[in-house]
Amino acid sequence: MRDPNCLFCKIVAGEIPCMTLLEDQAALAFLDIGPLAEGHILLIPRDHYVTVDQMPAAVAGSVLRHVPALGKAVRAAVNCEGFNVLQNNGSVAHQVVPHVHFHIIPRNRGDEFHFNWPAGTYPAGRIEELAERIRAALGE
Amino acid sequence: MRDPNCLFCKIVAGEIPCMTLLEDQAALAFLDIGPLAEGHILLIPRDHYVTVDQMPAAVAGSVLRHVPALGKAVRAAVNCEGFNVLQNNGSVAHQVVPHVHFHIIPRNRGDEFHFNWPAGTYPAGRIEELAERIRAALGE
Repeated sequence: MRDPNCLFCKIVAGEIPCMTLLEDQAALAFLDIGPLAEGHILLIPRDHYVTVDQMPAAVAGSVLRHVPALGKAVRAAVNCEGFNVLQNNGSVAHQVVPHVHFHIIPRNRGDEFHFNWPAGTYPAGRIEELAERIRAALGE
Repeated sequence: MRDPNCLFCKIVAGEIPCMTLLEDQAALAFLDIGPLAEGHILLIPRDHYVTVDQMPAAVAGSVLRHVPALGKAVRAAVNCEGFNVLQNNGSVAHQVVPHVHFHIIPRNRGDEFHFNWPAGTYPAGRIEELAERIRAALGE
């Protein structure tokens, strides 16, 4: 449940300090020391999972139930116009620390963080085929 | 619990069709028809909340407990190298439909979706001050 070489496991164990915002048996939330905006929060499971698809459903629920309160609190604390919740799985998806972490990133007009939105469309029949494959994988 | 003008409330009610992947009392997951990548999933609460900070903790947990299984299933279905989980609150954060939705976006090397990571640092004393303000807001 712990990786001795993992930065976030060391933070959970108290071996590396952090600015703790909340903690319970399942989760820890603290401020990112390399923030994309003031008040940028990290919410992590206490146990070590590299990517979110490795987490049991109950653990994911126990960790992510804190997202609303953290979002509300950071809004109040920094008076941001909005915020993103972002979680990256794999280096291709911009994951750096291999321990699941949800970023809560305050946003304001004209800030530096940005992403594009290159929405596509499906050719006829393709969305049905993909839905069938995902449903089959969910059932396994 | 429902907004009669909301696109996603209409999908939940079955008035607008969707490619359903899973549903239960709290949540619905379906394929985004304007995908950033093949297999792009939307996971939403059945009840209407505009932003995630409006959701009760228990509802957030009940919805988000499905993230691991959906991530695992889409990995299996489209054989992606990784994926992002992204949820946008407010137009400044790129929210378009005003009903909470978590994007699960398959990622592969060289794909079109991208974001920057303009990480900053805090001046001395600032992170402690922000942590104190967020903890105070959490306690209210």
